[in-house]
Formats: sequence, C-alpha cells, structure tokens
Amino acid sequence: MQWLDHSIMRTRGVAQGRTPDTHLLTEARQGKYHYTIGPYSDPVLSIRPGDRVVVETRDAFEGKVKTEADLPSRVLNMPFVNPQNGPIMVEGAEKGDVVAVYIESMAPRGPNPRGTCAMIPQFGAMSGTSMTALLADSLPEIVRKIDLDEKGVYWSKRVTLPYCPHIGTLSCSPEIDSINTLPPDSHGGNMDLPDMGPGSITYLPVRTAGARLFIGDAHACQGDGEVCGTAVEYASTTTIHVDLIKGWQLEWPRLENESLIMAIGSARPLEDATRIAYKELILWMEAEYGYDRWDAYMMLSQCGKVRLGNFVDPKYTVGAGISKNYLK
Amino acid sequence: MQWLDHSIMRTRGVAQGRTPDTHLLTEARQGKYHYTIGPYSDPVLSIRPGDRVVVETRDAFEGKVKTEADLPSRVLNMPFVNPQNGPIMVEGAEKGDVVAVYIESMAPRGPNPRGTCAMIPQFGAMSGTSMTALLADSLPEIVRKIDLDEKGVYWSKRVTLPYCPHIGTLSCSPEIDSINTLPPDSHGGNMDLPDMGPGSITYLPVRTAGARLFIGDAHACQGDGEVCGTAVEYASTTTIHVDLIKGWQLEWPRLENESLIMAIGSARPLEDATRIAYKELILWMEAEYGYDRWDAYMMLSQCGKVRLGNFVDPKYTVGAGISKNYLK
Amino acid sequence: MQWLDHSIMRTRGVAQGRTPDTHLLTEARQGKYHYTIGPYSDPVLSIRPGDRVVVETRDAFEGKVKTEADLPSRVLNMPFVNPQNGPIMVEGAEKGDVVAVYIESMAPRGPNPRGTCAMIPQFGAMSGTSMTALLADSLPEIVRKIDLDEKGVYWSKRVTLPYCPHIGTLSCSPEIDSINTLPPDSHGGNMDLPDMGPGSITYLPVRTAGARLFIGDAHACQGDGEVCGTAVEYASTTTIHVDLIKGWQLEWPRLENESLIMAIGSARPLEDATRIAYKELILWMEAEYGYDRWDAYMMLSQCGKVRLGNFVDPKYTVGAGISKNYLK
Amino acid sequence: MQWLDHSIMRTRGVAQGRTPDTHLLTEARQGKYHYTIGPYSDPVLSIRPGDRVVVETRDAFEGKVKTEADLPSRVLNMPFVNPQNGPIMVEGAEKGDVVAVYIESMAPRGPNPRGTCAMIPQFGAMSGTSMTALLADSLPEIVRKIDLDEKGVYWSKRVTLPYCPHIGTLSCSPEIDSINTLPPDSHGGNMDLPDMGPGSITYLPVRTAGARLFIGDAHACQGDGEVCGTAVEYASTTTIHVDLIKGWQLEWPRLENESLIMAIGSARPLEDATRIAYKELILWMEAEYGYDRWDAYMMLSQCGKVRLGNFVDPKYTVGAGISKNYLK
Repeated sequence: MQWLDHSIMRTRGVAQGRTPDTHLLTEARQGKYHYTIGPYSDPVLSIRPGDRVVVETRDAFEGKVKTEADLPSRVLNMPFVNPQNGPIMVEGAEKGDVVAVYIESMAPRGPNPRGTCAMIPQFGAMSGTSMTALLADSLPEIVRKIDLDEKGVYWSKRVTLPYCPHIGTLSCSPEIDSINTLPPDSHGGNMDLPDMGPGSITYLPVRTAGARLFIGDAHACQGDGEVCGTAVEYASTTTIHVDLIKGWQLEWPRLENESLIMAIGSARPLEDATRIAYKELILWMEAEYGYDRWDAYMMLSQCGKVRLGNFVDPKYTVGAGISKNYLK
Repeated sequence: MQWLDHSIMRTRGVAQGRTPDTHLLTEARQGKYHYTIGPYSDPVLSIRPGDRVVVETRDAFEGKVKTEADLPSRVLNMPFVNPQNGPIMVEGAEKGDVVAVYIESMAPRGPNPRGTCAMIPQFGAMSGTSMTALLADSLPEIVRKIDLDEKGVYWSKRVTLPYCPHIGTLSCSPEIDSINTLPPDSHGGNMDLPDMGPGSITYLPVRTAGARLFIGDAHACQGDGEVCGTAVEYASTTTIHVDLIKGWQLEWPRLENESLIMAIGSARPLEDATRIAYKELILWMEAEYGYDRWDAYMMLSQCGKVRLGNFVDPKYTVGAGISKNYLK
Repeated sequence: MQWLDHSIMRTRGVAQGRTPDTHLLTEARQGKYHYTIGPYSDPVLSIRPGDRVVVETRDAFEGKVKTEADLPSRVLNMPFVNPQNGPIMVEGAEKGDVVAVYIESMAPRGPNPRGTCAMIPQFGAMSGTSMTALLADSLPEIVRKIDLDEKGVYWSKRVTLPYCPHIGTLSCSPEIDSINTLPPDSHGGNMDLPDMGPGSITYLPVRTAGARLFIGDAHACQGDGEVCGTAVEYASTTTIHVDLIKGWQLEWPRLENESLIMAIGSARPLEDATRIAYKELILWMEAEYGYDRWDAYMMLSQCGKVRLGNFVDPKYTVGAGISKNYLK
Repeated sequence: MQWLDHSIMRTRGVAQGRTPDTHLLTEARQGKYHYTIGPYSDPVLSIRPGDRVVVETRDAFEGKVKTEADLPSRVLNMPFVNPQNGPIMVEGAEKGDVVAVYIESMAPRGPNPRGTCAMIPQFGAMSGTSMTALLADSLPEIVRKIDLDEKGVYWSKRVTLPYCPHIGTLSCSPEIDSINTLPPDSHGGNMDLPDMGPGSITYLPVRTAGARLFIGDAHACQGDGEVCGTAVEYASTTTIHVDLIKGWQLEWPRLENESLIMAIGSARPLEDATRIAYKELILWMEAEYGYDRWDAYMMLSQCGKVRLGNFVDPKYTVGAGISKNYLK
C-alpha cells in the first residue's frame, strides 16, 4: 500500500529497510495471559523494530462464555477478564519514544468461529453501573453467540453486519502503575476504538525501557460508543508490524490510516475525552504540519471528525481526526 | 428523490398529494428576528402542511461582524445573538403531533457571500466558559471572514473546505418556556448538527397549538463538535418543506435522510446527550421497526453511528443513527 | 439581630432608615401561580425597597398530593408544578442592580400542617431520568405525608427531624428567557439550597426593569443534595424583607448569614456548579474584601465550605462559602 | 472516649481486649517510600489487629519544596509524588475483610514545622488540567510556606486558620492493580477528605492477603474540595490503631466518628462520586441499621450530609453521612 510508505511509521521508524522477522505469539507461547498492563510482568517475547508478530488473542471473556446459557455473572471472575498477550519487549525502546503498531490483518481463530456479545449486570451505557451508582434494578443479563467469518457477522436472521475487525485493547506499559485491562488511559489500554483495525497504525507512548507492548480484545465489529458494553468479542489471529520512533514525546496515543490522522483521548466525563483528543490534534498540527495553533483550532471547528470509541468503560474514549487532504 | 417518497414525512404526513404553496419569508417580511424560542411571540407566517417556505436567514452574529476587526466582544450585545426566523404557524398542529422539516436547499445569500468564524472570549470547548468557570485567561479573540460559494469554503490559501451547509437552529416552541437561542434541548434549538442539511428531514415535537416553527443559524460547514464555538456562519436562503404528522409523540427531535434514521439528544455532560440519543433510537426501533428492545440495544452496540453536533453550547448535542439497511 | 445591621443589605441597600410597609401576598391575592420565571407575566404586587412581604406559598406539588395514595404520576400535570408567587415589582430596580431578600420567618400554613415527600418515576439522583436516560426500570413510586410544626418534622415513629425551613425557589426574572420553575440557573430559580432559610439574605441579579421577584417551593427540611428528588415540601407563610442595591453587577446569586458569605452556582456536571460557586467567591473576596486573587484561591483551598444544594434538578446547585471571621 | 467503645471497630474488630503493641514506623524504618499502592511492593511492617502504629509521614511534595522559590514544576519529578508509608501487613486479613484505622493523633514533625501549599501548572479546579484539557494558559505557579503548630496554621498576617489535621491518602492494596498515589478509588487512595482526622475511624476493604495498608499525605487543614489542588501539606507524626473486621464485604471505604457514619465515593463527574457515596450509605442503613431501603433513601433526602473531599484529583471524592442520632 502506497500510503504506508509515506506514513509516519515508515518515514520516521528506526526499522527502515530491514527485512522483518516474523514471530508467532501463539496461545501456547503466551501461556499466562495478563489482566494488568504494567511494568511488573515477565516478557513473553523480544523483537526488533520492524518485526512482524502473529498474535493469537483470546476474547474478552477468556473463552468462558461458550453458549448463550453461560451468563457472565456466573462464569466470569472479576477482575480477571480482557486477557492480554504480551508484554512484548521492543529492542531499543526507551521512555520518550513511541512504538508504532501497524495492523496487517485480523482473522477469526478456530473452526466455526463465533463471537460473543453480552448485556452484563451493572454494565453498559444505559444501566446503572459501579461508577454511575443507582438504586434501579439491573437490565436483564443476556448473551448472544454470533457466527462470523471474514465476510460477515451473522447477527440474526434479519441482519448481517459487515466484518469490521479491530483491536479493543493496545498499549505500552505505564511507568509505575499496573492498570487492569478495563480502563483506557493515556497509555492506551481498553480504548475500544473501531478505527484501530487492519490498515491502521497506532502510535503509543513508551514509558518504560523496552516499551512492554500488550495487545488483546479483538472485536469483529463495534458501533460507535459500544453502547451495551460489549462488541462482538472473538478470538483472533492478529498480525501486526511493530516499529520504533525515537524521541517522539506523546502524552496520548495517536492513529494514522490512509485517509486521516487522529489523536485519542480517554477520560470522564465524555467532553473531557473529546477535549483531550482535539487538544492533542491541534498541537500535532502545530508541531508537525505547519499550522498556526489558532488556525488549526478554528479550522477543526469546520472539518474535525470525531469518533466515539466507547462510553461504557471506566474511562470513555474519543478520537479526533482530520483528513490528510488538509495536511499537504 | 426516490427515498423521499418512502420517508416518514411522505408516508405519514397529512399533506399527501396536495400541491404545495410556496411562501417567501424574506428579511423584510420577517422584520424583527427572535432571540427566544417560545409561545409569546407574534407569528410571521401561517402555512398549510406540505407547504414550501423560502427563508432568508441571518447569520448567528446578525451580520454585525463585517470585518476581521469587528470583535464579537465589542459588536455583539448578549443575549441578542443567533436571530431566528419565525414563528411559522402550521395549520392543524397540536401538542402531541410532529412537524417534519425537509430541507430542499441552502444557498449563500447576497453578492460576494462571506462566512464568519470567531474565537469568542470565554466560549468554545478549549477555554474556560461561563459554565465551566475557571480563573485562566481567555484565549485570544480572533475573527475570520471566509469567502464561500456553493462549490467551496475558501478557508485559507492552503485549504478549501467543501460547502456542506446545514441549519444550526431549528425547533418548534416549548409548551411554556421561552428559551434563548443558544441552548439546544428537547424542543430542538441550537443543535448545530451537521446532518441537518439539504436532503434531510428533521422531526420536531409539537408542544403548542400551531407548532410555532423557528429556523436560523445557517452554517456553510462545520466539524464534529464545533470545537472553537462557531462554524462558518453565514446568511442563507434556505428552502424547506414542512409537513405535519398527527399523533406521533416524540420526546426529542429525530432526523432521517437517504441512508439512516437518527435520534437526537442534548444535555450535559456529553455522555447524557449520547444516552438520550441512543435510548430514543432503541425505543424507535422497538416501536416502529419490529425490533425487540434488547436486540436493538445489543445490535446498536455493533453498528450504531454517533455524530457529535456541538460540545460548546449550553447543552451538548449528539445524534445516534442506524443505517436504513437494517430496518427493512 | 446585630449582624443584620452590618450586612450588605443594610449597609448598601437603598431602603436605609425608612419604615417598611408590610404587604400580604395571600393565595387569594396571588390568584394564578406561575410555572415560568420570566418577563412575560403580569405583576401581582409592587413594593418599595425595604418593604416586608408576607407570602403564602403553595407546595411544589400545588397541594395535589393530599394522601399517600395520590401518586405524582397520576395527579400532576407536567410541567405545571412548583408554582411561584409573584412577580413582585421592586420600585427603582434596573438591570445591573441586585435585589436582596432577607427571610424573616417561615411557618407552616393551615391547620394540621403536613409535608410531602415523594419518589417520582424517572426523577431523583439514584434513578435514570429524562436527562440521564437509561433503559432500567423506574424505582417504585412512593409518597410520604409527614406531620410537622415549628418544632419538628415527624418523619416516622423512629425519627423526628428538626424543622429547618428554607425556600427552594427564589429569583428575579431573566432578561429575555421565561424559564420553567424546575431548573436553577444564573437568575436563581429552583436552587434547593438549605442555607436559604430564616436568618439568611439572598442577593439576586436584576435583569429587567422592576426586577420581577418570584418566590415559592418551601421546604420544612432538606438534606444535602435532595437525593430522592424532593424535600419535605409544604405550604408556608414566608415573611421576607426586600431591598435594592444599585449598581452591583452579579453574574450569579449570592447569600449572606450571620456567620458566612456564600456564592451560588448551578450547572451540570456537578463540578461545574462547584467551579462557578468558587470562582464567584474568589472574585468577590478580591473585589470587596481586599484579597489578592491567588491568595483567595489558595486560602479557600484550606477553609472553603461547600454546600451541595441539589443534584436532582435540571441543573445542580452548589454554594461555596467562607466564614466571616476571615473577612475582617 | 466513650463513643469509641461502641464503634464498629471496637464491637466487631478481632482485637477485642488485647493489649496493643506499639510500632514505630520512622522515616528510617520506612526507607523507600512508595508511589504506587498495590500488591507488588515489599512490606515494611507486620502487625496484629489492635496494634498501634506511630507513622512518620512525609509531605506530598516529599519535602522537596523547601522555600517559596522551589517551584513544583522544577523540583518535582512526576509521577514520583505523594509518597506513602507502608505496606503494613495486618495479620489474618483476607480478601472480603475490612481493616479499621482509628486516628489517635497527628502532630507536625520536626523543629519549626511548616506546611506547603502550591498552585501547580495544569492542576487545580479552576485551571485546565491534563484531564480537562484546554488551550488556555496555566495559572501562575505559586508556592506558599506556612508556619504551623498544633494550635494554628498561620496563613498570613491577616488570617490564622485552625489546625484541623487529617490524612489525605489511606488505603489497602487493590487486588491486582498497582495504582499511583494521585487518584482515589474504591480502594481508598488520595481521597483528601477532611473528616479523616484524629477521632475518626476509616474502614477499608481488604482485597489481598495481609491487607497491605498504605498511609501518607498529611494535611494541617483543608477546605471542602481542595480547590487550588493542594492543602497545607506537611510532614506529620500520625498515630493510628489498626483493627480487623472479618467478613465485612465493602465495595468502598467508610468512616465513623463520634457523631456520624459516612460512606465515601470517588469518581468523575462529581455527581457520580456523590451517587456512590449515597448509594453505599443507603445500603449500609438497610443492612445494618434496620432501615427499609426506600425509607432510607427518602429520609436522607431530608437529613443527609455531604462533604466534598476533593474535586481536583484524577477522581473526585465525596462523603455522604448521617447523624448517629437517627441510627439508634
């Protein structure tokens, strides 16, 4: 793909020109999956910038919701959900650098692949939750198992949804915190952003030596906001390319694809997530695309694009983007 | 347009089959523009369902910002901004009905049309405001005058933006309140939603006899969220068709275009606007498209589309939509 | 009371020295109570600064909830609730002035006075509401009728609460809006602030000629936040003194009693109400009590007092105060 | 103190009757202070339920702000702030238990004790922050060094504030997260709640074997909300009694003193912190004080007391309390 050759990853990454090695991070090799993202776990893999990793992710329920009778409140053991592959050590990565993750492909894993969507008690945007605490009864607990392949997500007899895979959780380690895999934050984490699929590059701030990359939580598709609390969660084979950009100080994750650049913020309330995303985008346009700060601010008021990732996780995630047409 | 024939407006509106009259609501005929939306002002026009109205809207600054030296803090006199045409009385409209407003076209008005964008002190998403009160200094006050026509918005030497017109403020009157033209709310008002342009139909709840339709605040284009606080504000000639749907009880405005249906919510914080929009959409799918409530909720978690209208007005506005493909 | 002689009302009000007239604003004289606060209603009374008014307020349910079987969802007709006495015209009041309202006393009205507390569907802090829209079921609808007198509020066999009366809704008219009596805002309105009882002076910004004072919504007691959505609502005889302070430009209401001064903000989310209150208090200390702005800010971080009025109304209300000990 | 004998700690704690040992947790014994609260650090002390610990806490700036010229942005190295003593292992504590911490006394430490208050760039309630991201300039950076002793906090020539010490940060370890010392959450953490001083008992949920108690961040006084972002931060000698209550499943911290019981919530936005606090209080009254749930809810709407701890930390903290008079 031609745009890729002009991407930030390719033009600023340290891997330039080298032939990548491919690593297989199978379930077996991963062994123990992780429920926190932090500096205290043992690496499973060490790679060089430019390398390709084929990752076998588990679904956010760890595969425990096998049938529509397996209610999450019975089969899950909080906070042991949303298991992550990693940490993958990236050679040469230091605090103040950025790890770039290009997603080459995401395929359903296993025979007769099925995804899982669930309404979980005290979870989801239209229910009281542990954070928006109410005295109202929970909504009913419902599980849906959905057949899927690379052509479609077979939601119901009436509706087939397009297969639009993306990674829900992606991050390098925070500097000193070890954070469970439910909240997104400035390190990345559980952003649940539909743009983070094949053909995208995510830029993640490095905060510890080796970066310690974590990845998991594949979605076969997801609507804006992930309103009921879950996407079509599935086990995937996700193939990524990882590169390293030295000395790029980011406060928050960023993303690039063929048509846009996007800054990503996670916070509550939702306007604060949006503010972070837009502020980071404005500062990016100022620092790297020759825009005056106020010109960028006023122009985004005319052409900025907002994607609501989720408004159900412990922090909500928003991406603010601008078409590459305006960056030339 | 074929989709229009199958729209809710055409299939449920009372105008069916009649030849519309066209009314001209010129600046002269409007006379005094309105700064509140309510039941206490004198009608300027009375129309029959199905009629067409050609409206001369003024820009949100009332045309007072003529050059880039006309700073809003000097030339504006709050709260006398965002002037509205109307109220237009719709024959037969009663509390519990819905007025449908199809936008046929929006053209810049006057010779050498120019739009206006401004950074206004204590306004905009990235500044302290009267509602998010801080001790920080205001951002600089800046005005941009922008040439535009029906082919483009000539933002700068570097950037031409597409002409994507829409109406910022549209509503019927509340039942007893008379609300200034800055906040959006369940009656509609200053929603600043980019989808509300030519080719869209907006459905507004009727709360007083005759509906009392108000319209104004044309934007030549606007990004998601209207981050700096203003769009490319301009004086327009906006042509609408107005119909009446009897006995459709809506709590909040809704919208339809060729490809989707959308429910609209306005509130603070932003997640509450999003909750309203999604809840209304779910109840709509349940009431009129044969969906089970929980199926709709879980499915929107996979395919719902969110548009951030504004996060700068006294309430923020969000539209939640679903493709018509899934409603057949 | 000695402090009253040194209050802002007494030292800066125009009434100084004159003997007040007393006006009776009985139910009969009021006639039609008001459901919006605005500039469009007919005055019921005109008074001179310094005058005393004995007001017969109706309870927020208009007296319609007579027994515990009178469920609000059945007997109320929204938005016709929270009826207000007024508008009372204050001679000489102009935009840019302040009306001071000292509450002399509040007594239960009628034989065998009883208050009313209710859990109303889709209302209250621990339920989904029209603004925090959820799919969860409503909480049960429950009415409590509570005997009360000036010695106590006889909540249950187990608990007698102290009689701590205050006015829930108090305001002058906005300039152009006519706002229903549920939301509080910068004009005052439905603040539900327990400090606003006998022995307090509230300072309200004047925005229209004659001020147009509205008052209603007496509470026999109320906890911080009014969590279930209603206080012990009752019909009262409330005696106030009204004075006028010329040329005091306030953006938001303020309050004074024997021991503190307090600024009041209303907004969503709740932190924004708190920000407004603290900002107004800091600017007040700077403008009138000889404090440097940053000294006031840092000192309030050590001794500021916050009262949560309500977090159930369309906007939430917070008062931020400082002891008069630190203002000498 | 007599009330203490009837406290939950004394009546349900496992220490009953035993003579406590006293442990000295001096700076020297502590050695390395901690910047995260979690399960991965090495214990400094192991105690038995009922024991007394005399803790030498460091101030939140680690003593690095020695003069008013030591600007935080220069002398601090984020995230290495708010150092904690601990972890203290409590014998017999297991997940599902509660650790009770009674604060016996807090004394300033060292000769000529001084506290520190600072306005820190991009921090505090009236500034843009890393979470409420704005383009506005930061407020000025200002440091105040304040003499203090057990009689007063000598704020300025004009103002002496009362010495009202409390602990800003107190918690047991989360189960799997290791969280930096800035945010409060359901484990406790940086709650900055003025009630948490001498004469109070805090109840903390135990989530790992041994509880792993952390303590630090003494304040000589603090206003409601800690509006500028910092209290009068000082190095203290804090004496606590620690007990263990078996099988008391708490989701959030709770507090008790002579006159009230209080539930504590931490979240953003601020209404969500308040909701958590009130919900926990209602469920507590139902579970342990014989109240019907809805009676508790409606009664707290009349007599609940809300304390705003902070609205400046990554999550805001609110306590909701009820007088013990109503619990008999």
